[in-house]
Amino acid sequence: MKRIGVVAPGSRLEAAAPDAVRAIAAELYAAQAPDIVFHPQCFLEDGHFAGPDAARAAAFLDYANDPAFDAVWFARGGYGACRMADAALDGLKPAAREKLYLGYSDAGVLLAGLDRAGCRVAHGPMATDFKRANGAAAITRALRFLVEGAADTLEPSTQGVAAVAFNITILSTLIGTRFEPNLKGRVLMLEDVGEYLYRIDRELFHILSSPCGRAAAGVRLGRVSEIIPNDPPFALGEEEIARHWCAKAGVAYLGRADIGHDSENKVVLFSG
Amino acid sequence: MKRIGVVAPGSRLEAAAPDAVRAIAAELYAAQAPDIVFHPQCFLEDGHFAGPDAARAAAFLDYANDPAFDAVWFARGGYGACRMADAALDGLKPAAREKLYLGYSDAGVLLAGLDRAGCRVAHGPMATDFKRANGAAAITRALRFLVEGAADTLEPSTQGVAAVAFNITILSTLIGTRFEPNLKGRVLMLEDVGEYLYRIDRELFHILSSPCGRAAAGVRLGRVSEIIPNDPPFALGEEEIARHWCAKAGVAYLGRADIGHDSENKVVLFSG
Repeated sequence: MKRIGVVAPGSRLEAAAPDAVRAIAAELYAAQAPDIVFHPQCFLEDGHFAGPDAARAAAFLDYANDPAFDAVWFARGGYGACRMADAALDGLKPAAREKLYLGYSDAGVLLAGLDRAGCRVAHGPMATDFKRANGAAAITRALRFLVEGAADTLEPSTQGVAAVAFNITILSTLIGTRFEPNLKGRVLMLEDVGEYLYRIDRELFHILSSPCGRAAAGVRLGRVSEIIPNDPPFALGEEEIARHWCAKAGVAYLGRADIGHDSENKVVLFSG
Repeated sequence: MKRIGVVAPGSRLEAAAPDAVRAIAAELYAAQAPDIVFHPQCFLEDGHFAGPDAARAAAFLDYANDPAFDAVWFARGGYGACRMADAALDGLKPAAREKLYLGYSDAGVLLAGLDRAGCRVAHGPMATDFKRANGAAAITRALRFLVEGAADTLEPSTQGVAAVAFNITILSTLIGTRFEPNLKGRVLMLEDVGEYLYRIDRELFHILSSPCGRAAAGVRLGRVSEIIPNDPPFALGEEEIARHWCAKAGVAYLGRADIGHDSENKVVLFSG
């Protein structure tokens, strides 16, 4: 039986998440359901965060370094992973390199750092997604990926292709730091939510003006949802923006990716 | 008589700006008022921008490379300098290195690039500031700096101290690109407007986790105004945030700077 540990590197997880997630796991797997262990830290409250920086780092390391867990599943994004990421990475022990990590959005800081540290990481649904419209589909996908490695949970264009995925705003704030991913030979998939298009434009300028972004084997654009209206209107759409900066950087724009802040968010297993 | 050229690298300038600015100059200097030339490009309209990227770059180079101008004064921030900055920097001719450049906010992309190119640049009021409450004070300060180099227009703590100044969000999006400033031996002054505190926190993580930010001789925090309320409240204030990331980076936090998106915004002449 697989054992999955859930920790919250940023914002606090909703109290209803464990029951909702376990009910979906029971329906999927009955007696073979994985053991999903929610670290008590997920429910701590410290201002904006699920507990103080040190508590979030310690909870992550509790589970990452415990050989009894097969996977660490991030509970939720929000904000805060960058505040505990140095301590999280500096505390990794050998057992941490033998498990799988799954999350997206703000948790991308840890995906990037864990990828650089040689761990197996994937961009995909988190426990908090239970509350989305059709959220059970997202939780089912995450569990089938974590438990079975089911191929149909993966973003379809990643078949046989080295790829990584990030939130645009998060990746922009990793450029030039120890968390900056090595994109050489990998397709970069990008998504975002709740931003002005002018900010998406500025962040793609940033990513694709840096040696980091320019090393990518290509860019695919996931969903850019809940765009905040601009005054005056931005005129360019999200895909025109991506094409513009890709062309300027000499990086191939490869089309759309089936990822985003929604229940359709497919899994991108970092590879290459 | 000094000759000042005004161009708009990002958003369009208000049509009322030339009359308002020239009236202030006439009151200050009467017959000795500087010749303030607003490039027609300032009033172009192309979606979000003051004309297409190529038009904004060409207007900048018209004035930057013209030995008849003593200074290039940026009209307004908004958004768009990063879209024309490569062309602007690649087109610089020797005359561009013999003048002064003044602006802030989005225009910080050009301040950073021009500073790296060996030009004299300063962070301070722009023509658009005429419309702020007490905006005449900001315009008067800009003109007295550009025309006379008046010492009392300068941010007081910069006396005898090598310093630079940037908008926090703009500097974050320059890290790891050709526009990234060299902060070695210089005090970094930072300001911002209209952001969530969690974003200020994330951007200071970024700046102070990069070799760029860690090279700074110290950090001073200007005003962080019009903060967007956070849910839940962010708990930490702007100065606690700055102290946190400075301490983590081993960079001295030196206190407040008298800069910001307001009419009190003092001039920081880049030095060191």
